[in-house]
Amino acid sequence: MKETATLLISCPDRKGILSEITGFIARNDGNIIHADQHIDFQKEIFFMRIEWSLDGFKIPKEKIATAFSFIADKFSMKWELKFNTDIPSVAIFVSKYDHCLYDLLYRFKANEMKGNLKLVISNHKDLENVVKMYGIDFYHFPKTKETKEKVEEEELKLLKENDIDLIVLARYMQILTPKFVKAYPNRIINIHHSFLPAFVGARPYHRAYERGVKIIGATSHYVTEDLDQGPIIEQDVVRVTHRDTIEGMIKKGRDLEKVVLAKAVRLHLENKILVYDNKTVIFE
Amino acid sequence: MKETATLLISCPDRKGILSEITGFIARNDGNIIHADQHIDFQKEIFFMRIEWSLDGFKIPKEKIATAFSFIADKFSMKWELKFNTDIPSVAIFVSKYDHCLYDLLYRFKANEMKGNLKLVISNHKDLENVVKMYGIDFYHFPKTKETKEKVEEEELKLLKENDIDLIVLARYMQILTPKFVKAYPNRIINIHHSFLPAFVGARPYHRAYERGVKIIGATSHYVTEDLDQGPIIEQDVVRVTHRDTIEGMIKKGRDLEKVVLAKAVRLHLENKILVYDNKTVIFE
Amino acid sequence: MKETATLLISCPDRKGILSEITGFIARNDGNIIHADQHIDFQKEIFFMRIEWSLDGFKIPKEKIATAFSFIADKFSMKWELKFNTDIPSVAIFVSKYDHCLYDLLYRFKANEMKGNLKLVISNHKDLENVVKMYGIDFYHFPKTKETKEKVEEEELKLLKENDIDLIVLARYMQILTPKFVKAYPNRIINIHHSFLPAFVGARPYHRAYERGVKIIGATSHYVTEDLDQGPIIEQDVVRVTHRDTIEGMIKKGRDLEKVVLAKAVRLHLENKILVYDNKTVIFE
Amino acid sequence: MKETATLLISCPDRKGILSEITGFIARNDGNIIHADQHIDFQKEIFFMRIEWSLDGFKIPKEKIATAFSFIADKFSMKWELKFNTDIPSVAIFVSKYDHCLYDLLYRFKANEMKGNLKLVISNHKDLENVVKMYGIDFYHFPKTKETKEKVEEEELKLLKENDIDLIVLARYMQILTPKFVKAYPNRIINIHHSFLPAFVGARPYHRAYERGVKIIGATSHYVTEDLDQGPIIEQDVVRVTHRDTIEGMIKKGRDLEKVVLAKAVRLHLENKILVYDNKTVIFE
Repeated sequence: MKETATLLISCPDRKGILSEITGFIARNDGNIIHADQHIDFQKEIFFMRIEWSLDGFKIPKEKIATAFSFIADKFSMKWELKFNTDIPSVAIFVSKYDHCLYDLLYRFKANEMKGNLKLVISNHKDLENVVKMYGIDFYHFPKTKETKEKVEEEELKLLKENDIDLIVLARYMQILTPKFVKAYPNRIINIHHSFLPAFVGARPYHRAYERGVKIIGATSHYVTEDLDQGPIIEQDVVRVTHRDTIEGMIKKGRDLEKVVLAKAVRLHLENKILVYDNKTVIFE
Repeated sequence: MKETATLLISCPDRKGILSEITGFIARNDGNIIHADQHIDFQKEIFFMRIEWSLDGFKIPKEKIATAFSFIADKFSMKWELKFNTDIPSVAIFVSKYDHCLYDLLYRFKANEMKGNLKLVISNHKDLENVVKMYGIDFYHFPKTKETKEKVEEEELKLLKENDIDLIVLARYMQILTPKFVKAYPNRIINIHHSFLPAFVGARPYHRAYERGVKIIGATSHYVTEDLDQGPIIEQDVVRVTHRDTIEGMIKKGRDLEKVVLAKAVRLHLENKILVYDNKTVIFE
Repeated sequence: MKETATLLISCPDRKGILSEITGFIARNDGNIIHADQHIDFQKEIFFMRIEWSLDGFKIPKEKIATAFSFIADKFSMKWELKFNTDIPSVAIFVSKYDHCLYDLLYRFKANEMKGNLKLVISNHKDLENVVKMYGIDFYHFPKTKETKEKVEEEELKLLKENDIDLIVLARYMQILTPKFVKAYPNRIINIHHSFLPAFVGARPYHRAYERGVKIIGATSHYVTEDLDQGPIIEQDVVRVTHRDTIEGMIKKGRDLEKVVLAKAVRLHLENKILVYDNKTVIFE
Repeated sequence: MKETATLLISCPDRKGILSEITGFIARNDGNIIHADQHIDFQKEIFFMRIEWSLDGFKIPKEKIATAFSFIADKFSMKWELKFNTDIPSVAIFVSKYDHCLYDLLYRFKANEMKGNLKLVISNHKDLENVVKMYGIDFYHFPKTKETKEKVEEEELKLLKENDIDLIVLARYMQILTPKFVKAYPNRIINIHHSFLPAFVGARPYHRAYERGVKIIGATSHYVTEDLDQGPIIEQDVVRVTHRDTIEGMIKKGRDLEKVVLAKAVRLHLENKILVYDNKTVIFE
């Protein structure tokens, strides 16, 4: 694996931004590998993801941020600098439904994910064995309405100790408190088992069945304080017919959920997502 | 084209229904061409679509209904008997958006539809020429809030005079009154430009854009008194990204709308739809 | 789980078949749960899958076949009688690619499959541990060109001892001999990593990349003596762009392969596939 | 419509290309609207599509090419400069199948296409009326094996007189001679009614039916001297089942063909396609 740097940038659109960014890299002998740019003309915002090889780059890794900050300031950029050699640490939260967990455990093991799965947290003990089988630490944090806040504090402590960068809710059946959510802004990914904004909230397959829809979906999104209202990362759908019972829909939906959640996690870990205005720009 | 009869049946499920129906056809020397059956186990309802060749069938066409009614009564069936030689008459309602109209005009002309397009009604004059180019009668019925009820009466009169069996709302931008809807139960098909139940009501593409969805859809449904709440016939979707502006979404959506509306009309004209409980059973 | 019987039937089409079959079930007080019928008008063949509850059925389970054979003979039927309480035994063959294996191990464990996964055979030892982790027997049968025939005999012996009904090739990188294939006609399912008949044979992703296709696919099919020419059971596709490298295509393809193979296995185990003329009729 | 310039560039990849291109635009006060870049790492080729507003651009339109050629030469670029105000002229070739023709006529009329449809050429007279209804010139050029070369010369003359930039074969049932093809390199778009490379050549739906595939497709591609082997622009697919007869497949396929051909034409007219190595890079 070659070492690369990636900049994720958003700023008010004006002339010369792209030239300035690419000039910075060229002047310092960087070789651009990927460059993807987008302008929201309605809001006049410039977005960019640019990745370049650090092989022969004149500025040492630890000084790139400072060097770039002059350009960033000039254009009032919001920006992040990432190195592909910094592997993010990941925690999965799960309850009893296990299909997304199994799927993610395999994908991390098979190196499909550019992240380091460090631990799994659950409010139940049911999935302890499979997690341990994969050599991953498992933590049991049961929750009640009364204990939720206190337990979340312990969870946050554990996450901090393990330098967790990304939290994945793999069908975690507990609603997180605003305090918890605020601690990981745009760093908690949830899978919702419907095609949002259809069927926000509980029992979406049952409601899809009642409504008689011909297609069901799944949606992965960043968690915000508003339930199921966070920025959508990925969605996918599958056809159903009158022959599909609720159980049949749930079965079909499981395969969707796995793929849609895995894709969101992969995009996040590859630094391909920019969030603004409760929406996402995905640089695939 | 061989002459066939089709029965669409629904009734409480119990033993022996299928045997009785197929026995009726076999005893009278009918050759079954298609038979499709479905049971809703939750509600214990039996559904069937069965089509047989009338070539050599012992009961004359006009007496089949009477002959079958004995079986129908025994099982408390709701049923319809259709002959493929009875071509239904169709009216299209349209306003200014013309993509679905053009699409349907072509499909009727090309004999993709087992129906007879008799007339087009519009609250604007814009599309008169194209309709006439295809040799179809065009009627202009402008409407205001005040005149709506009165105009609808004239429309109903015209529809009746023309023995219209099916009304297709091809992006018709007027909401029909309950009285009008009641005159054509499960015989008015609308295209809604979203993946229902997401974005019920006006300006769905704008709201999809605001929400940042990654997939947009279109839904064809029978019109009931509740706006966009009728039985869904067909849905389809297409991917969008952050690069799609609202205009881009509208453009992509137009292709969806055409296909989804055309499919619903085709299914209806081929007697492949059974409605119950505000849902559809589609016998494809 | 209620006990049911399923008949899979094909025969020359003529009048009265459906009536005779359903009459047989009705006379003996069977309650039909699913009935699906199809006629190939080009070849004049009748196909049917019919499933009924044995609750209250007058003929004892073990005598149904004899009782039905009178009807079967009358219409020159090819037919199979299956009971949902007879759970088929399954063997998986695998080499080193592990994604389909992991996927199937999970699905059998999670009871998504109406089969009993008894054993896994591999020409390598790499996947022994994961198979055993799931509590499934693992057998290592290395093969060379010289030993293939002899090893296959040992495999056949093992399969016979375990009463294996279905063999699943989960990216098994050995071509089976005609003798082996003949021992399990329409009972060996393979996954091919292309949209057949495009890219028959080796390295399909590489050839898809070279050709510059915009969509790649996967195909599950029964194995016959002609490589990749057997009856197709299921296919699915995914979009690719110029940005997808060969490695990227392989990654995307893996998710396809898992879903397409799993669906074929599920359909087979639920007795929903009829084979004729090197094609399949799928009664979903 | 704002005036913009678009550069389509390919060249051997090396450091500094992107910076040089964007610097050229920035120095001259151009505002970049879209920039999309791609590197084929296997072949070490750099691709770019960049579009900028000419509003306030310091170099006059007619001198941009000369000014840019210094950069182009430095990096050994193949490049094209396009202005969105230069509307390309389009000719459609058609035989008797009319669905793609109707579809394109509507799309040009509805301004979905950034091109000027000037004329339609056919080897039959059947579609003369509809073409004229849309106010487009129609030319009848019947062909036999013997007259083909001579007729093609007349066609080429007509195309030249009308400054045709793009030829669209909308189910044109004549194979063009290599001489004709060479006159419009990467400027003739064909629709093939299969998912290439499956079913190259004649009667693909019949062969798909025979093979028992579960998905059929359509492919739009640039025409080269090798039949159905040219660079693929767009593909799409639709599911079929055992219930689909050949006629049913053809019907389903028609909707695919329309969409897939229209998309290719749109991409070409918006200067979003780069061809290299018998493949396409699509900058959507």
